[in-house]
Amino acid sequence: MDFRVERDSIGTKEIAKDAYYGVQSLRGYENFRITGLNVDERFVKDLAIVKKACAIANMKAGELKEELANAIVKACDEVIAGQLIDQFIIDPIQGGAGTSLNMNMNELIANRANEILGHAKGEYYPIHPNDHVNMGQSTNDVIPTAGSVTAYKYLVTCVEQLKRLEAAFDEKSKEFANIVKMGRTEMQDAVPISLGAEFKAFSRAIGRDVKRIDAVKDELLGVNLGGTAVGTGITASRKYMDTVVNELSTVSGLDVYQVEDLIDGTQNLDKYSEVSSQLKTCAVNISKIAGDLILMSSGPRTGFGEIKLPSKQNGSSIMPGKVNPVMPEVMKQIAFQIMGNDLTISMAVQSGQLELNAFYPVLIYNLYQSINILSNGVDTFINNCVLGIEPNVKRCKELVEGSIGIVTALAPVLGYEKAAAIAKKALYTGKQVKEIAEEESGLSTSEIVNLLNVEKMLTY
Amino acid sequence: MDFRVERDSIGTKEIAKDAYYGVQSLRGYENFRITGLNVDERFVKDLAIVKKACAIANMKAGELKEELANAIVKACDEVIAGQLIDQFIIDPIQGGAGTSLNMNMNELIANRANEILGHAKGEYYPIHPNDHVNMGQSTNDVIPTAGSVTAYKYLVTCVEQLKRLEAAFDEKSKEFANIVKMGRTEMQDAVPISLGAEFKAFSRAIGRDVKRIDAVKDELLGVNLGGTAVGTGITASRKYMDTVVNELSTVSGLDVYQVEDLIDGTQNLDKYSEVSSQLKTCAVNISKIAGDLILMSSGPRTGFGEIKLPSKQNGSSIMPGKVNPVMPEVMKQIAFQIMGNDLTISMAVQSGQLELNAFYPVLIYNLYQSINILSNGVDTFINNCVLGIEPNVKRCKELVEGSIGIVTALAPVLGYEKAAAIAKKALYTGKQVKEIAEEESGLSTSEIVNLLNVEKMLTY
Amino acid sequence: MDFRVERDSIGTKEIAKDAYYGVQSLRGYENFRITGLNVDERFVKDLAIVKKACAIANMKAGELKEELANAIVKACDEVIAGQLIDQFIIDPIQGGAGTSLNMNMNELIANRANEILGHAKGEYYPIHPNDHVNMGQSTNDVIPTAGSVTAYKYLVTCVEQLKRLEAAFDEKSKEFANIVKMGRTEMQDAVPISLGAEFKAFSRAIGRDVKRIDAVKDELLGVNLGGTAVGTGITASRKYMDTVVNELSTVSGLDVYQVEDLIDGTQNLDKYSEVSSQLKTCAVNISKIAGDLILMSSGPRTGFGEIKLPSKQNGSSIMPGKVNPVMPEVMKQIAFQIMGNDLTISMAVQSGQLELNAFYPVLIYNLYQSINILSNGVDTFINNCVLGIEPNVKRCKELVEGSIGIVTALAPVLGYEKAAAIAKKALYTGKQVKEIAEEESGLSTSEIVNLLNVEKMLTY
Amino acid sequence: MDFRVERDSIGTKEIAKDAYYGVQSLRGYENFRITGLNVDERFVKDLAIVKKACAIANMKAGELKEELANAIVKACDEVIAGQLIDQFIIDPIQGGAGTSLNMNMNELIANRANEILGHAKGEYYPIHPNDHVNMGQSTNDVIPTAGSVTAYKYLVTCVEQLKRLEAAFDEKSKEFANIVKMGRTEMQDAVPISLGAEFKAFSRAIGRDVKRIDAVKDELLGVNLGGTAVGTGITASRKYMDTVVNELSTVSGLDVYQVEDLIDGTQNLDKYSEVSSQLKTCAVNISKIAGDLILMSSGPRTGFGEIKLPSKQNGSSIMPGKVNPVMPEVMKQIAFQIMGNDLTISMAVQSGQLELNAFYPVLIYNLYQSINILSNGVDTFINNCVLGIEPNVKRCKELVEGSIGIVTALAPVLGYEKAAAIAKKALYTGKQVKEIAEEESGLSTSEIVNLLNVEKMLTY
Repeated sequence: MDFRVERDSIGTKEIAKDAYYGVQSLRGYENFRITGLNVDERFVKDLAIVKKACAIANMKAGELKEELANAIVKACDEVIAGQLIDQFIIDPIQGGAGTSLNMNMNELIANRANEILGHAKGEYYPIHPNDHVNMGQSTNDVIPTAGSVTAYKYLVTCVEQLKRLEAAFDEKSKEFANIVKMGRTEMQDAVPISLGAEFKAFSRAIGRDVKRIDAVKDELLGVNLGGTAVGTGITASRKYMDTVVNELSTVSGLDVYQVEDLIDGTQNLDKYSEVSSQLKTCAVNISKIAGDLILMSSGPRTGFGEIKLPSKQNGSSIMPGKVNPVMPEVMKQIAFQIMGNDLTISMAVQSGQLELNAFYPVLIYNLYQSINILSNGVDTFINNCVLGIEPNVKRCKELVEGSIGIVTALAPVLGYEKAAAIAKKALYTGKQVKEIAEEESGLSTSEIVNLLNVEKMLTY
Repeated sequence: MDFRVERDSIGTKEIAKDAYYGVQSLRGYENFRITGLNVDERFVKDLAIVKKACAIANMKAGELKEELANAIVKACDEVIAGQLIDQFIIDPIQGGAGTSLNMNMNELIANRANEILGHAKGEYYPIHPNDHVNMGQSTNDVIPTAGSVTAYKYLVTCVEQLKRLEAAFDEKSKEFANIVKMGRTEMQDAVPISLGAEFKAFSRAIGRDVKRIDAVKDELLGVNLGGTAVGTGITASRKYMDTVVNELSTVSGLDVYQVEDLIDGTQNLDKYSEVSSQLKTCAVNISKIAGDLILMSSGPRTGFGEIKLPSKQNGSSIMPGKVNPVMPEVMKQIAFQIMGNDLTISMAVQSGQLELNAFYPVLIYNLYQSINILSNGVDTFINNCVLGIEPNVKRCKELVEGSIGIVTALAPVLGYEKAAAIAKKALYTGKQVKEIAEEESGLSTSEIVNLLNVEKMLTY
Repeated sequence: MDFRVERDSIGTKEIAKDAYYGVQSLRGYENFRITGLNVDERFVKDLAIVKKACAIANMKAGELKEELANAIVKACDEVIAGQLIDQFIIDPIQGGAGTSLNMNMNELIANRANEILGHAKGEYYPIHPNDHVNMGQSTNDVIPTAGSVTAYKYLVTCVEQLKRLEAAFDEKSKEFANIVKMGRTEMQDAVPISLGAEFKAFSRAIGRDVKRIDAVKDELLGVNLGGTAVGTGITASRKYMDTVVNELSTVSGLDVYQVEDLIDGTQNLDKYSEVSSQLKTCAVNISKIAGDLILMSSGPRTGFGEIKLPSKQNGSSIMPGKVNPVMPEVMKQIAFQIMGNDLTISMAVQSGQLELNAFYPVLIYNLYQSINILSNGVDTFINNCVLGIEPNVKRCKELVEGSIGIVTALAPVLGYEKAAAIAKKALYTGKQVKEIAEEESGLSTSEIVNLLNVEKMLTY
Repeated sequence: MDFRVERDSIGTKEIAKDAYYGVQSLRGYENFRITGLNVDERFVKDLAIVKKACAIANMKAGELKEELANAIVKACDEVIAGQLIDQFIIDPIQGGAGTSLNMNMNELIANRANEILGHAKGEYYPIHPNDHVNMGQSTNDVIPTAGSVTAYKYLVTCVEQLKRLEAAFDEKSKEFANIVKMGRTEMQDAVPISLGAEFKAFSRAIGRDVKRIDAVKDELLGVNLGGTAVGTGITASRKYMDTVVNELSTVSGLDVYQVEDLIDGTQNLDKYSEVSSQLKTCAVNISKIAGDLILMSSGPRTGFGEIKLPSKQNGSSIMPGKVNPVMPEVMKQIAFQIMGNDLTISMAVQSGQLELNAFYPVLIYNLYQSINILSNGVDTFINNCVLGIEPNVKRCKELVEGSIGIVTALAPVLGYEKAAAIAKKALYTGKQVKEIAEEESGLSTSEIVNLLNVEKMLTY
């Protein structure tokens, strides 16, 4: 392989001749082979969007020559279009609050822009990574700005998927509205409920999650771009500072806004803790719902067997004919992952020191994973599970009719203690509640039939 | 000790003759000596408030005779006034979703009300714990209703304390507005900042927490009272169901409202996960801020020494004259506790099964602890620390002037690489940046002095 | 109330005349009303044991006059015997790494010892809290030493309870050895298993926990006593340093030992993280087992109904005759608490800075709670649940015989695909596997009967 | 693209003609695009090792024809050698306890082995994925067996890296043995300590982690292979069950052993919780140590400045000459990730139900990540940070000499209160402790000099 030699303040280093990244990127690569993965592609592209906006703002502010700015913009546009992505070589878990990623971008844009202007890679002339590509910027403002924009975009998709899930459960709740099933509290036979009401409760829980996540989404549009190193805007021109976020808004097509206090915005990452927490609460709901689907579909013969999940794959490599609740299972796993990631994110946020939080890389890596596995999971969960759920009407009915819990409906008339005696006797003898009630309650059969009318127990 | 004998469906049991609780309370006590503590007093009183509202609603609905209702109300009023609290003997961590606590209340109110009506304790006549005190109710609606009301009340206090903290930091930020100090990123000398801006950032972070917690507070006023066992209202009369929450609103003086879907409201506890998560995000902010105070006050001689925390107690039993940052330390510990409690709460919420979440007791125990230690901690933190913080103006100034980070202000003029060379030389020689700049930058002294004007680096 | 006035370096303060604590205790009390609780009684007593050992060691080393030492020892003995416990007024969550608690002890012992010697409280003569009671000591060695000893003692009880639980499950596994039940994987009917094997697996899991917890117990006997402030033993005499842990061993009756590296022992608290983690793994096992008991006892009619948990209290305030799995439920709650506490402890341990970890108070508070709720929970779980579990033999048998999963036993003979076709047909037609196999497999009835012999499926 | 059509019990599906996976793999792929990643390569290879061992054991047991077994072994060998890895298309987070991965392997091996025997892909003849490749096996035993073996291998590397870290810190501790620096407790000046002792404490903490992780490693060699679906070995021949783990031992070259109770071994995953917890405790130690390095290297001018970390990359894109503690920062991020992963793993383990834990995929994915990022991080941490740390001897000395904490050494002679007065005066006047002591202590200068001899404060 052919090399060029680059130099920085640490020393010199050989770089593959056709590489668009430079010496500092390579140091970052070598220092941080941690997960073996590279930084999220969407994040890289949004960083290029930020760099483009910065170049335009600097140009308009008279800080950056038009020719240089145009070349930078052109190079950024290529990255935004998905080119050169393999030249981003930094691990998502990296020390230095994102400086390696920022320098990877600065070097790449400088090399590509210089190339456009007819210069060789590695010359860093006429465009210098720090002085021109990073002009008026710091890792500490461009990285969180791009990171926040990417999180916003991912969250938009996530909210859409969750809305679909809310609607899917709602649809099923209407479909199942008239199916009576046994309600269980503490997993013991309680009193009847409709299968539709069960699914409506699922829908409502997800509906709250949609609202919660939607409500925090816009915080992600608030960015600290213009604050540079610590939020005071040092090295940036006044005009650039005042206009760069508007440029970003134009370039990105999003309603991004500059946060009121750039110092606060640079050192405090609590908005990410909030976003992650709302995802966690959603995960907690999904885990509960997934657990209920596993319970209700347990069987087919030795479990509850009240619903049937669609068969999407053979359940077992050894037990023929077995179909497992793989979709709720994967949703539970996603929930566990999001809960763990939330802890990682909380720890990162609380570990900030003074003017900066150096732990942004691990934070944003976990946040993206949480959002994306939730979106992906919900999508397949709807398509491959929820929409195809079928009730076992006959089984639901049998269970209700054979249950003892319906004795509860006699309690207001007979009193708790007498009703309890009937329940106990039914359990002991194996008879139905109705039979025992006829023998012992002193009520007429028609009164009993009326009281034990299951449909009347369903609604409030 | 004198005993009376009580009987329930499990068998008979001796109860201390003057006890207001009964056989089921005692079983709950014996089954669950877990933490050795008793249920929160505020929670007990709010449960009595709920019971009172239920009795009134049942009476107005024509379900409960006025004489019995009046006696029940009178007994509830005594508990609300703080009497008989020692008769609540159940551990906060209890199996059964709160049934033991509910029965403790039902038995106590029945015994006390019967006593008021001239009957002996243990007779449960004319007022029966289940048939009258618990009329139209279930553990599954009264316990979460009272629990939510208590959480609301505690949260009101907490928000007030946090507002005070926001204001206290804001006050200090104004006081310190003109004090220049060194800004540090990744704990390395960066560029100057004002001490006031530092405290303003603290104030803003807490301000966001105030908003977040305030925003979720009202969800706690939504209750599932009237839903009874699973949310269908079985055993409750229509009229009672429609009016009981209004009665509760009257009795409690709070704008409680019945949630739209009582089935959802009975089985899903996600609102508690949300409240706890917002507390967690607040804890994360507080931990970060506390850490910064510990850093800035480190010393007095071998640390940063930029601020002085008030001496509130001798710091050491062995090292004379040592004063430690005990207030930030206790705040960090509170933060760690809240983060741990949030995990416990998340696990409880995600473990609900079908029509009920049986893990409410541990959830609410942890939530109350989180809220209350935060309120208590913030109160003492303000009074015994924040308000008394003093700057070490001289030290702040010296550190800035001796720092190398101010070279950053030369970079826009000299370029990154030349500025870096000056920084390196300053560090290596031990000289000031200004000196080296004069020797090497090619700029005039007045230009350098102007560029290195620290005050101009402070604002954006 | 009558007061005396005490003075420290902060200023003067009124102390209740008959109080044994002093000015520094009162400051600690006022600064830290966080949880509203007081420090664990066992911990206080063990701290008195440490103080006693220190006094004896100092006396033998010729540092402390015999008369003073004897008075200190006498005062310590009173605390060890449970006297004056109400004079310990410090909150378990306190800033300062335990200095407040240490000074509470130092002041109390000084006052009581001086009283014994005929002097008034508040005089601190002839015995001074710092110079004599705390001689050669620091909060940083005496507090973790006492804290570790207390944890050890609690853990001994905990291991005993867990051994009882292991044995209880083992006993039930023998009792249930011959009961065939349906095995379920992913909650779907799988293949038969014996109920005894199920309980044996519970026993083995707990057995591993016993081993794990037992293995870390002895680390708690390693103490940093003698290291004083940072582990270098500053202010302590050589002879005292070399003998004090032996004295502690004598006084406490435990095989405590001085850790090899006192500097390491003062600043690193990883052993607590390890202990807490082993408790967490135990909690995780218990939560899984409790969940299984809830599943197997679900019903009585609309669930699995394979076992019956003992009725220890009425399950419901509204549903007569309902018995809930309150014991497994409380165990799950304990597990959630321990998991949350483990997070708090991990955060505390990782937050140590340089020569000390200032977050010991919240750490030890959570550790004690974890150990004690586990001990208490396991005790009641054994007595009130495990030992009284009864199988529903008839139900177990019916479920196995009606299941489809037993088709698995045909697969080695028929091949997976043919067996799957039989399973599908059985499910579709509602017939038994045996019937379909007779129609379609080409095997003789006796072959089929032999292959489907459930007992033969149980053992490997 | 050319397709072949495959059929399973769900229906038919087009498969790319040259694909080695089959219809069930493709369903698994389509159902679970969650993270977008594929299963760990080492895990896949170890699963091939397991399959090879199973084929040999079945052949020797007379269950599998030699010709078929040989072809299977050959196909497995190819995977083990790293071929066909791109044909493993399943996401690490998948429902079904690993069935999709197992079927991906079964189909791939069947297709490749049949190809070796001259048959076309998709024919599944003469070798059938379930009947031959999966003979006597279940997802429930082969997946955890391979997963555990992979974890073992990764852990071996991890322990080696941690041993290197222990040694590296130890080496530095010797190098720094004679450098006196200020000890700080609660971040306040305390008493002197040697820089070497500081690093020795780091070494010891890591040394404990090495022991802890090493101690749990061997549990990972215990496997449930032979237990098939629920641990009873259904479908497996007696002879195969008794020999298959020996075959695995031979094929893998590891001392794997069959766990005593296969039913327990199939349903309980607590060993993973234990392993993860030990990693977490290690992470906690590393986070503390990394924090200390950040503190001690803070500056260069406005922080502690006691040590200098090697410059491995430019610290800032904006602040010239800035060098940041990127290595400790990345280690902290790794620690946060491991702590979050530990939570995910704990949740997965506690969520097992009855005969199986369906959440193995997310568990093992997180465990591998934790182990590998720790190994990778420690490796770069040693090479790029620890070994190159340099002390700032001059700065260390100055800080000690100017400190007030050394007054502690006067306390045993002067008493705590008098020493405290000296400390206070020194702080107030800005003078040295020695000066004030000469003025006020009544001790002679030589006594004072002797008492304040810093070297004598270092050792115990």
